[in-house]
Amino acid sequence: MADLTHAIAIDLGGTKLSAAIVDSAGCIHERTKRPVDRGDVAGQIAAAVGELGGAGAIGLIVPGIYFAATGSVWAPNVFGHEEKPLGRDLEALLGVPVTIDSDRAGSVVGEQWLGAARGLTDVIFLAVGTGLGAGIISGGRLLRGAGDIAGAVGWFALDRAPDPAYKQIGCWESKAAGPAIARRAGLPSAERVVAAAQSGDARAKEVLAETARWLGMGIANLVSALNPQMVVLGGGVMQAGDLLLDPIRREMREWAQPIAARQVTIERTQLGEDAGLLGAARLALFPDLAV
Amino acid sequence: MADLTHAIAIDLGGTKLSAAIVDSAGCIHERTKRPVDRGDVAGQIAAAVGELGGAGAIGLIVPGIYFAATGSVWAPNVFGHEEKPLGRDLEALLGVPVTIDSDRAGSVVGEQWLGAARGLTDVIFLAVGTGLGAGIISGGRLLRGAGDIAGAVGWFALDRAPDPAYKQIGCWESKAAGPAIARRAGLPSAERVVAAAQSGDARAKEVLAETARWLGMGIANLVSALNPQMVVLGGGVMQAGDLLLDPIRREMREWAQPIAARQVTIERTQLGEDAGLLGAARLALFPDLAV
Repeated sequence: MADLTHAIAIDLGGTKLSAAIVDSAGCIHERTKRPVDRGDVAGQIAAAVGELGGAGAIGLIVPGIYFAATGSVWAPNVFGHEEKPLGRDLEALLGVPVTIDSDRAGSVVGEQWLGAARGLTDVIFLAVGTGLGAGIISGGRLLRGAGDIAGAVGWFALDRAPDPAYKQIGCWESKAAGPAIARRAGLPSAERVVAAAQSGDARAKEVLAETARWLGMGIANLVSALNPQMVVLGGGVMQAGDLLLDPIRREMREWAQPIAARQVTIERTQLGEDAGLLGAARLALFPDLAV
Repeated sequence: MADLTHAIAIDLGGTKLSAAIVDSAGCIHERTKRPVDRGDVAGQIAAAVGELGGAGAIGLIVPGIYFAATGSVWAPNVFGHEEKPLGRDLEALLGVPVTIDSDRAGSVVGEQWLGAARGLTDVIFLAVGTGLGAGIISGGRLLRGAGDIAGAVGWFALDRAPDPAYKQIGCWESKAAGPAIARRAGLPSAERVVAAAQSGDARAKEVLAETARWLGMGIANLVSALNPQMVVLGGGVMQAGDLLLDPIRREMREWAQPIAARQVTIERTQLGEDAGLLGAARLALFPDLAV
């Protein structure tokens, strides 16, 4: 694969897909974006690839899980709860190898390649959006887990008080992701809460402070277990910037193993929405490289 | 190193050290045990090695942290809070290479080599004794973290109610390790609580049930983050056997990501106190082998 000079990277989301030509230095040469409907998703991806002129390799990230053993994808916001053989379908349509991984894996690989965590060996990317999930690089390697679902940290248990939401989406996600923020503030979306807090609204600020406490607590658990050099925070909720970031750092230090807490920094994404896209390109271009 | 047929493995504890000759198939040929005093620890280890007749390589596990970057050991129950250049001192005394790691790393490597988790790629060993700590193998590799202190899971944050103990030993350890068990039962040691529960004492049984809830909750966090095939439980507290094991399994399933929860089994150590010793031998005999 050493002759690959560029790949097409695709970031498949619940409502839209982004695709780009990315070279082996990580430069984006051309890009396209289109809405996704739940019909022929493989065909829509192939159309985006065709629009970009094709490539020797394709890297695709999905909002869910890629099961390497079976080659199937589970992405409820795209396909409902059925697993789909998306890689096989795409390779049949396109005739080139397709490397698939989860969006959180793509994001941590992207940030470690070209973003906030460039060159580090131990990095966690935490996506705080509608859901909560982590991509983990430890000792220079992407962790996948035995069944390719490592990083499902939205299920972290942080509170013993019973709540039926914990069984639906996980305890940490039910406390700290976008929908919880909106609900606590009585506003229609987390974006609205962030905007209100940024204009000084006291209740919205208190909701974000409470959110930062939950985020810091769960991040502390990742720090104690994995002793990373950096935790990179991305996802829509992190638009709140320092309103969340500073209190998250303080709360993390309250809980984490003290030496590990001193060794880690917590930073916002540098690549934003392109983190996953660039990670997908890296995984396609350098499949055998430890990141 | 391919010509190494046996190593001397040493398990350094706070009050005693165990040493054994272990061959490359994991058979223990001879062993010795002696008390440790805080004076000349390297000399005491060298004496044990001499008693066993020497070896081409030595594997040593310590009750604390081994910092690979500096070669120093932090093991408060042996050396107080000072870091010691134990590897350098031993190599000067013995003239052979010494491979050092933490006891929890040794235990997970031992169980994966010869014990409950034989041949698995994703395994966590959780030691539940006076303290609480984990050794982690993910994707066939031992996780060390950026500063060699990965697995400090006794610091898991599981409860928001403030308690000064959390800042001393970590939240999870303050809830679920031996001293917490003894304190809740009003007995002098966790061993006494386990014995009382095994003879049917209702209060001791309730204390263990509460302990199992905390253990299951923290184990769930490891399962959600790392998606292991097996969690192996060791340490003195696990002498309680099924009194803890079954309720731990139930509680884990209450919290962990559901797919990951179905993919994992929770088992007791098969190697008991030899897990770390055998892991130390494996690390010395096969330093470059992914476990």
